[in-house]
Amino acid sequence: MTYRFEPDRIYRMPTHFGPAPGPRQMPEGIATDSKRSPRRLSVAASFLTDGALLERHLPEGFALAGEPVVTVEFHHMTDIDWLAGRGYTMIWVSWPVTFTGRQDRASGRFLAVVWENLADPIITGRCEIGHPKLYAEISEPRSCEGAQICNAGWMGFRFLDMTVSNLRNEQPAPKPPSDGTLMLKYVPRTGTWGESELQQVTLSPPADPDMTIERQQTGRGAVRFHKSTWSNLPTMYHVVNALAELPVIEPRGGSLTVSRGGKTYRDQRVLI
Amino acid sequence: MTYRFEPDRIYRMPTHFGPAPGPRQMPEGIATDSKRSPRRLSVAASFLTDGALLERHLPEGFALAGEPVVTVEFHHMTDIDWLAGRGYTMIWVSWPVTFTGRQDRASGRFLAVVWENLADPIITGRCEIGHPKLYAEISEPRSCEGAQICNAGWMGFRFLDMTVSNLRNEQPAPKPPSDGTLMLKYVPRTGTWGESELQQVTLSPPADPDMTIERQQTGRGAVRFHKSTWSNLPTMYHVVNALAELPVIEPRGGSLTVSRGGKTYRDQRVLI
Amino acid sequence: MTYRFEPDRIYRMPTHFGPAPGPRQMPEGIATDSKRSPRRLSVAASFLTDGALLERHLPEGFALAGEPVVTVEFHHMTDIDWLAGRGYTMIWVSWPVTFTGRQDRASGRFLAVVWENLADPIITGRCEIGHPKLYAEISEPRSCEGAQICNAGWMGFRFLDMTVSNLRNEQPAPKPPSDGTLMLKYVPRTGTWGESELQQVTLSPPADPDMTIERQQTGRGAVRFHKSTWSNLPTMYHVVNALAELPVIEPRGGSLTVSRGGKTYRDQRVLI
Amino acid sequence: MTYRFEPDRIYRMPTHFGPAPGPRQMPEGIATDSKRSPRRLSVAASFLTDGALLERHLPEGFALAGEPVVTVEFHHMTDIDWLAGRGYTMIWVSWPVTFTGRQDRASGRFLAVVWENLADPIITGRCEIGHPKLYAEISEPRSCEGAQICNAGWMGFRFLDMTVSNLRNEQPAPKPPSDGTLMLKYVPRTGTWGESELQQVTLSPPADPDMTIERQQTGRGAVRFHKSTWSNLPTMYHVVNALAELPVIEPRGGSLTVSRGGKTYRDQRVLI
Repeated sequence: MTYRFEPDRIYRMPTHFGPAPGPRQMPEGIATDSKRSPRRLSVAASFLTDGALLERHLPEGFALAGEPVVTVEFHHMTDIDWLAGRGYTMIWVSWPVTFTGRQDRASGRFLAVVWENLADPIITGRCEIGHPKLYAEISEPRSCEGAQICNAGWMGFRFLDMTVSNLRNEQPAPKPPSDGTLMLKYVPRTGTWGESELQQVTLSPPADPDMTIERQQTGRGAVRFHKSTWSNLPTMYHVVNALAELPVIEPRGGSLTVSRGGKTYRDQRVLI
Repeated sequence: MTYRFEPDRIYRMPTHFGPAPGPRQMPEGIATDSKRSPRRLSVAASFLTDGALLERHLPEGFALAGEPVVTVEFHHMTDIDWLAGRGYTMIWVSWPVTFTGRQDRASGRFLAVVWENLADPIITGRCEIGHPKLYAEISEPRSCEGAQICNAGWMGFRFLDMTVSNLRNEQPAPKPPSDGTLMLKYVPRTGTWGESELQQVTLSPPADPDMTIERQQTGRGAVRFHKSTWSNLPTMYHVVNALAELPVIEPRGGSLTVSRGGKTYRDQRVLI
Repeated sequence: MTYRFEPDRIYRMPTHFGPAPGPRQMPEGIATDSKRSPRRLSVAASFLTDGALLERHLPEGFALAGEPVVTVEFHHMTDIDWLAGRGYTMIWVSWPVTFTGRQDRASGRFLAVVWENLADPIITGRCEIGHPKLYAEISEPRSCEGAQICNAGWMGFRFLDMTVSNLRNEQPAPKPPSDGTLMLKYVPRTGTWGESELQQVTLSPPADPDMTIERQQTGRGAVRFHKSTWSNLPTMYHVVNALAELPVIEPRGGSLTVSRGGKTYRDQRVLI
Repeated sequence: MTYRFEPDRIYRMPTHFGPAPGPRQMPEGIATDSKRSPRRLSVAASFLTDGALLERHLPEGFALAGEPVVTVEFHHMTDIDWLAGRGYTMIWVSWPVTFTGRQDRASGRFLAVVWENLADPIITGRCEIGHPKLYAEISEPRSCEGAQICNAGWMGFRFLDMTVSNLRNEQPAPKPPSDGTLMLKYVPRTGTWGESELQQVTLSPPADPDMTIERQQTGRGAVRFHKSTWSNLPTMYHVVNALAELPVIEPRGGSLTVSRGGKTYRDQRVLI
């Protein structure tokens, strides 16, 4: 007898061995505590750039909202329950937008690209959420001579340096009200090259009630993407070079946040 | 102005920075030679198992064809043109099946799971082809005391050992006629957890005219999957344990193949 | 003009480019604070074993002192000043001894072997201190289902599993008075194979005034070394197998310690 | 009973578990064939530089011989018998010298620094031979757009790029007669910081009768060391920066060599 998909269970390729354990589907009998897991060290920096350039990297239905400020965040996470206590690091690149769909409207931040240093959350995040995740070698953020230093590369080519210096115990300015984080889930069509099976805008609502901020500092941020040849980054030089071309017109501050707990994006939804 | 998708170009998440370079879409001006790239060392071993158990890991529309023989192949590839000369290693697990769709029928091998030690081809293969790829740490096959030794793990837990010993210069038995390699492309639905956006059978036709076999040996194969706890393999213990439960009723030989050149799966197509 | 060695400066191979920066010699102008660096998560477990077996792994001049209890410690260190804020993990294996030299006598713990997951401190520690360091892939200790889980391997072969469970906020029993940690520095003679250039006992005195313990828990420890073939661990199967042969007669507790600050072993000295 | 050192057997720290398996001491019963192991892909490039600068990196007793030409070689080795069939990559940096000791005289190449991407041969080579080995992340040399591309980094900071292009099937010019490869073995004194236990010149004689060259090409070489801060390379910025300061006055060609077999440096000896 061949297998049947069990109803209401999340599957991922390969689907043939049963429902897939992951962030949004823990095995039975494993206790989780989203108030304690994960632990997270976040380092962020922003810069004002050229809005016209930025707009070229927005899909249809989106428009820039307010100032064209790009934010780069490193999230070093440990004690992740669905990885049985292991951790990984992710990088988010975003800017403020509004989305106008056939039916839905939302304003928030547009998550343009994510890099992570572990394949497993890349696989789950791309399929299940629409997170535009790529792989990078990402150093654990380190503290050196008073600054927080972050960087990322691929096969030894460092494409991103970020530093937040002059850190002081001060809360960052409150974030403007937002409907959440917006992204584009896209699946190409096999065989009919150039067409897609799926193009949909998905939204992470802003609420994250189980997340507790334990420490927060602000400082001076500096972000630099390094232009690459095809030979150095053959699967993503186009992504890195587009970001490297954005001029840093003005730095817009940096921050360090230590937090605990957080949601699993079970509240992610499709906008129409 | 927001961007428009260029027609006839392959995109992947994030789509916002232009068409995506990859195995099926090389940048302009980069010469490729599919008769020379990649170089490949393949080590394979097969075993007879319990057909009833195997059938539980087949999706609807599939049936076992002939003897229930599982084949595990390690493909260590170097000189890959779309990675600018770099390489990686993949593991294929398959068994013989027939597929009966609403319209199409095919017999060949069912590609149940693939592991690779590089995230980039995992991302391209899952989206574009429907390859059921997961990440593993995979050692380069090594030769030791007359045997070819292969293994794979995740975060230091070794879940697969394979050895081919007694290698002699002898061609393996010719493969039976086949319509190619069959797999299930599956994309979960965001937000409506438990439903899918896409479930389709895709097929790699068997022809690979640019591939040249340079050396071939046969030997005695031994395969062992190691049972795992959730804690050791939290994202795929269910896959590994299902394979570890398949009894090795009889080893069915092993082989070593050195080859050069190969196709990019642009001929992959959907069966209905 | 060829170079001259500058007096009172520490050198390491290659010596040709000037004095070597490292834990015991920071570059000028770099501020350090040994009260804050490094941060350390230590997980330890002990077991009673067979004294006669243990004694076979003691060099001349040493004798077991008290009960034959082996202690295995994982030290996950971050924020290390001499690595510009980076970190690494080390494993110490030790048991209680007395040393009687021609002139010196000391009692303390015998550091039989150290594994680290970074080559740089292996190089500095072996040459400068006499630390018997080898390389291993070491996972960051993780917390899973109420236990602290640690393991180590080499090229995908896991040779050591350690778990400390039932953790409760309780200080471990005070350590007996000790003259410090004892080890054997050994340098083979080039060309005259089988002879040595140097065999000397070195001692780390116990004082570590800049180290502050921030949190301490005790629990139930479990240690397991896995027997290996030469093929799996060709450079150290003899070390791992000797430890795997030690029977665990009785577990002797485990602990978790979070601390900050520490010394650089500038106080290391040779016993005669 | 404590252990005694067995006569005529090579030991390394930790010495307490018996003689140490390694390149110069294989376990009993393991067959080796130095005519077949290792397999080696070597890529080399040379450049003329400023002799006065180069001389500053020579120890007492050495003098430049002939033109001040620095050669950088990448050796990617696989099928290494003493690693049970595994491989690793090393980088050699050398220039021509004569050595005049109290008793011995030799002319050959001075091996100024070696980088390797595996800790085990770093440990054996430093102790037993006097190889000035450091750790680096080293990519497998790759072929891209007609050139051979090599690079090395540490924790994501790439400090060395080397390319050999325009490769043609032509043997490189024969090497001048040489007494071999010269290096300085140095061991610091524990506790008496700034003094040494051992400073001796060691020599690898040039003969390597079991090595067979299978393929040889010559081309145009380009070498570039990248200047580093302490923060990027805290244990070896002084080495890399000294090499980065050497001007490339003129490139002196490059080569690619595929070979098989080789010696274990059992013929290494000390010069006086």
